[in-house]
Amino acid sequence: MSTNQAPRRIGFIGLGIMGRSMAGHILAAGHELHVYNRSRDKARELLERGAHWCDSPGDVAAACDMVITMVGYPSDVEQIYLGAAGIVERAAPGTLLVDMTTSSPSLARRIAEAAAARGCHALDAPVSGGDVGAREARLSIMVGGAQADLDRALPVLSLMGPNIVLLGGPGTGQHTKMCNQIVIASTIVGVTEGLAYARRAGLDPATVLKAIGGGAASGFQLNVLGPRIIAGDDAPGFFIEHFLKDLGIALGEAEQMGLQLPGLSLARKLYEQMAERGLGRNGTQALFKLYES
Amino acid sequence: MSTNQAPRRIGFIGLGIMGRSMAGHILAAGHELHVYNRSRDKARELLERGAHWCDSPGDVAAACDMVITMVGYPSDVEQIYLGAAGIVERAAPGTLLVDMTTSSPSLARRIAEAAAARGCHALDAPVSGGDVGAREARLSIMVGGAQADLDRALPVLSLMGPNIVLLGGPGTGQHTKMCNQIVIASTIVGVTEGLAYARRAGLDPATVLKAIGGGAASGFQLNVLGPRIIAGDDAPGFFIEHFLKDLGIALGEAEQMGLQLPGLSLARKLYEQMAERGLGRNGTQALFKLYES
Repeated sequence: MSTNQAPRRIGFIGLGIMGRSMAGHILAAGHELHVYNRSRDKARELLERGAHWCDSPGDVAAACDMVITMVGYPSDVEQIYLGAAGIVERAAPGTLLVDMTTSSPSLARRIAEAAAARGCHALDAPVSGGDVGAREARLSIMVGGAQADLDRALPVLSLMGPNIVLLGGPGTGQHTKMCNQIVIASTIVGVTEGLAYARRAGLDPATVLKAIGGGAASGFQLNVLGPRIIAGDDAPGFFIEHFLKDLGIALGEAEQMGLQLPGLSLARKLYEQMAERGLGRNGTQALFKLYES
Repeated sequence: MSTNQAPRRIGFIGLGIMGRSMAGHILAAGHELHVYNRSRDKARELLERGAHWCDSPGDVAAACDMVITMVGYPSDVEQIYLGAAGIVERAAPGTLLVDMTTSSPSLARRIAEAAAARGCHALDAPVSGGDVGAREARLSIMVGGAQADLDRALPVLSLMGPNIVLLGGPGTGQHTKMCNQIVIASTIVGVTEGLAYARRAGLDPATVLKAIGGGAASGFQLNVLGPRIIAGDDAPGFFIEHFLKDLGIALGEAEQMGLQLPGLSLARKLYEQMAERGLGRNGTQALFKLYES
């Protein structure tokens, strides 16, 4: 199988809120789509629209020339790629493997090595933009791997978002996603503390937002999540428990690199308190609750 | 003197980088301007353009029907307003007093009370936008005080920026500025840590910025200060030593309100380390240096 050939049979593994939207775009573009998910009922709508069901990740890999994964935790990624009868073992030489899960950079490198040993090609390609970005095909995609492999993946990845950036070799997509989460972690702490101060000082938080939302404090977290905090809307754009997973990966990688990140450590500590209170299925903006008590 | 009358003789006290620009706009609009500064040489250009020199803050107050102050620390504000032969003592009844220094909310309330006892009117009106905002008349102005007094001040304040928001009674302008600084404090920590991680991971920080600068991490601190961090440009848009002053005021007020702000406390601790290294005259983005060692 030539590695220059555009992918024709696409596999998609992991049909959560984001995965379903992303797979739907691939299907809508007319591609042959093979899917697997731990619970089959989440695949129903895609199957009704013409997707093919596979009974395991390995079966998806065997049926496709490009496999995309969007699962939960690095342990899930490791199992479906490197486990017995998994993706790497079952994929034909030349298959393009793209993990879009937010996962660990070092695991991404191990998968790329295992794939290469089988004559396959791997990219790590985590995204930002959340469920809304996935639904509206406005994801940012951070890619680690070879330019030639990205070129081959591009017609499919482009169906999910316009901002696709190659950062370097295997793992650099995941590293870049970590940078994104590290910036967000302390920023949401700052936004939360600023609005908690506003409320405690007796100010009207909405008027405060009007006064400070256009200056040096402005940004996505203040201007998009700030109004949700003020409205007491804790609905998840991004789950606290997923955010905690990401912060754990980032802190682990930083530790391996000998890099102290006190702001990130603090943010994780605060979000762990949220999880301990049973609030892990709220959106990240619910951190405000910690400052109300 | 009627309090409804538009101010005609404007006083400006404090001709630092920002104050000079702000006073210059008032002069350019054709107002009679009376100025005082601790070191007279900073007034030279304004005097050449027609401003009148006064030998003390009290002399400015006695000569004007509106006095604007833009000085350094709350202790300076207290002295020029409430000290012997100061602004409040020398101002004629009806004079409008506008402190644009970032200072403490409780001091703003004390000045408003002292002013009212003399038949004068006080506003606290700190700004954001820095030296560039001051120069280009694009400051955001956060106002605490009475609506009628703001109405009277508006023709003059409008010369400095378009976004003027009244938050409530005396002190609420300062409280709102504290909200702004609290958001910024943790945000710059996050931006710094994200870019420090990028560099340590061997990524090209400029490419990382391209990948993450349009999503949930985006904002003034990442998109405007990020490139300066990457370029190693520590020139002050906002001095670390001034930022430390603001963070100290915010933490003091929060403590009085019984509000714990761990993100803000951490940011102050990190910036104190910068000051201890003799880096207090750098811009806030120089925090990156702490993560390089």
